[in-house]
Amino acid sequence: MPSSQHVDIREVALRDGLQIEAPIPLSAKLEMLAAVAATGVREVEATAFVSPSKVPSMADAAELAAELHNFPGIEFSALVASPNGAKRAIAAGLRSIEYVVAADDTFSQRNVGRSSAEATDQIGEIVAIAHGSDTTVEVIVATAWDSPFEGPTPPERVLAIAASACDQGADRFSIADTIGTATPGRVSSLIDQVRPVIGDLPLGGHFHNTRGAGLACAYAAVLAGVTRLDASVGGLGGCPFAPGATGNIATEDLVYLLTDSGYDVDVDLQAAITAARVATAAVGHDLPSALLRAGDRTRA
Amino acid sequence: MPSSQHVDIREVALRDGLQIEAPIPLSAKLEMLAAVAATGVREVEATAFVSPSKVPSMADAAELAAELHNFPGIEFSALVASPNGAKRAIAAGLRSIEYVVAADDTFSQRNVGRSSAEATDQIGEIVAIAHGSDTTVEVIVATAWDSPFEGPTPPERVLAIAASACDQGADRFSIADTIGTATPGRVSSLIDQVRPVIGDLPLGGHFHNTRGAGLACAYAAVLAGVTRLDASVGGLGGCPFAPGATGNIATEDLVYLLTDSGYDVDVDLQAAITAARVATAAVGHDLPSALLRAGDRTRA
Repeated sequence: MPSSQHVDIREVALRDGLQIEAPIPLSAKLEMLAAVAATGVREVEATAFVSPSKVPSMADAAELAAELHNFPGIEFSALVASPNGAKRAIAAGLRSIEYVVAADDTFSQRNVGRSSAEATDQIGEIVAIAHGSDTTVEVIVATAWDSPFEGPTPPERVLAIAASACDQGADRFSIADTIGTATPGRVSSLIDQVRPVIGDLPLGGHFHNTRGAGLACAYAAVLAGVTRLDASVGGLGGCPFAPGATGNIATEDLVYLLTDSGYDVDVDLQAAITAARVATAAVGHDLPSALLRAGDRTRA
Repeated sequence: MPSSQHVDIREVALRDGLQIEAPIPLSAKLEMLAAVAATGVREVEATAFVSPSKVPSMADAAELAAELHNFPGIEFSALVASPNGAKRAIAAGLRSIEYVVAADDTFSQRNVGRSSAEATDQIGEIVAIAHGSDTTVEVIVATAWDSPFEGPTPPERVLAIAASACDQGADRFSIADTIGTATPGRVSSLIDQVRPVIGDLPLGGHFHNTRGAGLACAYAAVLAGVTRLDASVGGLGGCPFAPGATGNIATEDLVYLLTDSGYDVDVDLQAAITAARVATAAVGHDLPSALLRAGDRTRA
């Protein structure tokens, strides 16, 4: 059992968590953000600069970005899907952007109207825009383990995107189990293959709990050397391809598991549970978090 | 990733799953049993021979036992809490019994009216009764990681019970996360300590998903050398110390995780999902299983 290894948790409730929810008022987002900031988390995915007609819940991206200066000490990021989105994010004040490339063509075409290779080839342009404005770029591979349309993703596709992301100057690299089908055996295997390809680039993991294995995957990722994990308070966030199923791994469940297993994290467990309650109120329905129901264990 | 390691899954929905439910008719249990048998599972915890006034849902233990001959090819077990319970189980035809010893005194006193040491000392008497009738005994340590009353369980207590169980002739040994507080780091650690104490005795793990970490714990247990895991279709079974929280890890979620990670199991995934639906109907309320909601992944 490790005694002092640190895992960076990025809070994604404001973006991935809210993405498929009906739009909520900016004031409700700011209440969530205040509760999230109180957890001690150092990285927050704040919003997405994408098409407001396609993702109405992110239509207030610029307005939200204008409030982020009220939360010092947190590195805020925004998701973008194109060079234009990157420009909008930077103009709004973001200095950390995430660019998603789906590993399979069907998902990529439906999501952004481009093939996986075309989306990959755009990394360099986005990096140039970002680096010209003192902004970092994280490349996230979506459907890294499975596509809802094409089935299992050949690892070679992820490795090719990883190599290309490095060549094109990405600052960070992450692999995402977009539809919540990965399992720890395949997580370990893919990370073992990705790690040597990206050299010293920080490697992150993004897991959904859609099939109950999200936390097991997250732990397998940490054992395999991943030091950055996404999570969402309350487990906010669904999976559009599995209606009614749970989505992102819950921040408080991840914090419980990691700290109890001997890892250090920045996020306070009780504050994360409180933030999950705030998120529940913001969206007006129950969230799947386990700690929200069961609470912490008895501490002698 | 292992390619052919086998994990034995014991189905516990009929006992641990139903234990805190309101009693259901024997006919409903037999429908569940038929659905469970159709999964291909080789081991089923059928019932408990305990006080009917304390556990009303198990009051039909002998009647259920009389039907088990209709399901050949399955090893049925029953839980007992005393020598008298062992005699009743054997008289009813069971040839595999589980005897539970709680690692902490408060839980043990409340559960069976004896200290942990007193319960441990009774193993030999139960083994003598069982072995006199061609019956095997599995000793299960409850509250192996945490007590809801006393907090974290010192590993030394589990190791002492393990050593005593071996000395007193137990045939199998298991460790149970009774209240769903364990995490993979502590699971690996305890198993690494237990393994050398019990020599060649088969080692089992019993995990609850109360804090979302059940499957992560199960996988950590398998990585640490456990080859037998309990699970319950649908995730049937609550935790009396965490009202509203989920209980046992769901058989279908475990099957999905293990087979997708490269392990062999006897249980068929789709049949387990069907059995989870039968269990849902039997108890009349939703169950927490993830696969029941999300279904299998796309198999290209």
